Amino acid sequence: MNDKRFVYMDYNATTPLHPEVKSLMIEDLEIYANASSMHEAGRRARSRVEKARAAVARLVGARDPETVIFTSGGSESNNTVFNTMYEIGKQGKRRKIITTAIEHPCVLNAAAHLEEEGFPVVFLRVDDKGRVDLEQLARELDPAVTGDGGTLLVSVMAANNEIGTIQDIPRIAAMAKAAGAYVHTDATQAVGKIPVDVEAWGVDYLTMSCHKIYGPKGIGGLYARKGAPLEPLIRGGHQEKGFRAGTYNNLGIYGFGKAAELAAAELDGYRARLGALRERLRAGIVERVPHVRVNGHPTEVLPNTLNVSFPGAEGESILLSLDMEGIEVSTGSACASGSLEPSHVLLATGVGPELAHGSIRFSMGRGTTEADVDYVLEKLPPIIARLRRMSTVAACVDGVDASGDERAS
Amino acid sequence: MNDKRFVYMDYNATTPLHPEVKSLMIEDLEIYANASSMHEAGRRARSRVEKARAAVARLVGARDPETVIFTSGGSESNNTVFNTMYEIGKQGKRRKIITTAIEHPCVLNAAAHLEEEGFPVVFLRVDDKGRVDLEQLARELDPAVTGDGGTLLVSVMAANNEIGTIQDIPRIAAMAKAAGAYVHTDATQAVGKIPVDVEAWGVDYLTMSCHKIYGPKGIGGLYARKGAPLEPLIRGGHQEKGFRAGTYNNLGIYGFGKAAELAAAELDGYRARLGALRERLRAGIVERVPHVRVNGHPTEVLPNTLNVSFPGAEGESILLSLDMEGIEVSTGSACASGSLEPSHVLLATGVGPELAHGSIRFSMGRGTTEADVDYVLEKLPPIIARLRRMSTVAACVDGVDASGDERAS
Repeated sequence: MNDKRFVYMDYNATTPLHPEVKSLMIEDLEIYANASSMHEAGRRARSRVEKARAAVARLVGARDPETVIFTSGGSESNNTVFNTMYEIGKQGKRRKIITTAIEHPCVLNAAAHLEEEGFPVVFLRVDDKGRVDLEQLARELDPAVTGDGGTLLVSVMAANNEIGTIQDIPRIAAMAKAAGAYVHTDATQAVGKIPVDVEAWGVDYLTMSCHKIYGPKGIGGLYARKGAPLEPLIRGGHQEKGFRAGTYNNLGIYGFGKAAELAAAELDGYRARLGALRERLRAGIVERVPHVRVNGHPTEVLPNTLNVSFPGAEGESILLSLDMEGIEVSTGSACASGSLEPSHVLLATGVGPELAHGSIRFSMGRGTTEADVDYVLEKLPPIIARLRRMSTVAACVDGVDASGDERAS
Repeated sequence: MNDKRFVYMDYNATTPLHPEVKSLMIEDLEIYANASSMHEAGRRARSRVEKARAAVARLVGARDPETVIFTSGGSESNNTVFNTMYEIGKQGKRRKIITTAIEHPCVLNAAAHLEEEGFPVVFLRVDDKGRVDLEQLARELDPAVTGDGGTLLVSVMAANNEIGTIQDIPRIAAMAKAAGAYVHTDATQAVGKIPVDVEAWGVDYLTMSCHKIYGPKGIGGLYARKGAPLEPLIRGGHQEKGFRAGTYNNLGIYGFGKAAELAAAELDGYRARLGALRERLRAGIVERVPHVRVNGHPTEVLPNTLNVSFPGAEGESILLSLDMEGIEVSTGSACASGSLEPSHVLLATGVGPELAHGSIRFSMGRGTTEADVDYVLEKLPPIIARLRRMSTVAACVDGVDASGDERAS
């Protein structure tokens, strides 16, 4: 166990290509025709686009492939939904937007933009395990109580990227529909990790990303229920029935189709295997590192995601120390990198700023092995111990005791 | 010359990968880390993103690579500029948008959307060669004449995708700047085909697409001069300094960087070689097919693009007949496929609807040879003759003489 390994535990940030996706893409680098062209090569390129669309639709339980449009990724899909709500709501009375405090930055920023435009926007609280407060949702959905013109959209992520907590989307959707609101779920982190079913969930819109499921980057999808309004964010040509202009990204779309097909086929095995690896990592950390806090929900959680706070150690220092041992993790969302703010997700679950700063997301995937987990369990404890010793010294120099109340277990 | 060949003459719709881009992409399928991640693999992925950005910036003469952001393609880049204008103009008095009648559908539709939002929008006329009417531009830029609050944006494409006509962007930009307007040019078809220089042209924004220059689809760029306002179309994470959220499309970006590097290196040879091929095709068609009209400007034209009207023959039928001979061309923009409308570009140049319906765009590229041109010159004349015979019969049946005034030469 003393040889240095390379252990990638940042699968929620992005995934390597599935070997079968990779093989397909190498072949498909040859297919270049514009899938909107009328000639033979164009029609062939297009028919493969439609085959991929069907595979993606199947992965999320959408019966009609035409309910799925291709976008450049999850951020674009989410922004498309919020832009649609802007177009609908800007003239109307029903314009309240309900989302949560723990959404991905692209939903938070799209919602904040609507707030600037005068839309009432509510960011629902979550409990200490990251589950949305459904009582607050019920109150906010009632215009008689809140005095607004009614809720236009409820947007709640299916599973959180940082702590892995899974929301009860079917129940949330039912509540929202009963109040006449549209329902959107950002399922970027859920797809391929847990069963996703737009029909059973009862959502109007669902966001997907391809690079989280062992496919290429730069391609994503948006499910929009037949009849649900949709405004193009990118206006232009006739592609995607006018809902999303731009030349078809053949290679990305073909890769997405293959990745979707594989994700559906491998889902059950993935959940069982990753769930066991996660438990091995969780139990091992709790056993070997004193004073840690495991964040997120104990059971309603993604099988691959483990978020742990290490009070007295600083997240970025842990990350860099693990990196030197060949272990790649993150302190939270890659999209929030460059920010010195503590994780908004952890803060929303009631973790204090100091503890939030000392948190690490281990996100595992197809390539993760028991040996990888054991390697992390070997390297992590001495790193935490060393950083805590340094931190105590620093804290004493500053006259602050860093070993205070925040040290939950 | 009797063997069936495969001749792709639809390079303005899209291009195959340059062999060197393809080799690089096959290698780079391995690089999967999220370029926003803090760990070693993330930082390596990011440093290659920045190397690609520098190559793309160099291709368009942008001194500072940070003036280029990556998008999902030309349509997104154009929409980003128009959305920025919306955000600036929605509160202000200066909100007039001047563009042209021959822009790509994404600019036309983005402009039409601003018109719906109450912005004054002018679509400049073009002459019979497709050049913008600069006298009309001068008048429209003068608020004393037009009685509006002043022009916010002038957006004129650098070179037209259908007829290849090149506009005098430096002059247009100077006129617009003198009137205090921002200047945007959609250079999707110009980049890699003619010299493009944002500094010499004096534009604030310039749109690029990668798949038109032998790189992958699903990736594009937007130059925005330092200090020019920019609003994200896709809101979210910190990527691209907050101007464009979404996980970096590593593979697309690396391919774009390589394609840009090659396009810059090959530009002079490309122009000379393609210019000669275009002239061979043009002269051959004029010589062998009676009653044709060559559309676009005779000299201010892309070296690879030849648009020809064949009165008495229907464009779609010509396209399909050529397709059966292995020759792939288009009737206009692939983005307008599925539409039965005649080309808005040809109509704007004064070509009547019937003639516009009988037009073909031959767009050549790196792979085109003299033998390809000669093969087209062999196959095309009998196809036109046959379709004209059928068309005369049909016209007689309908009681309409399809061989009327429109038959220019």
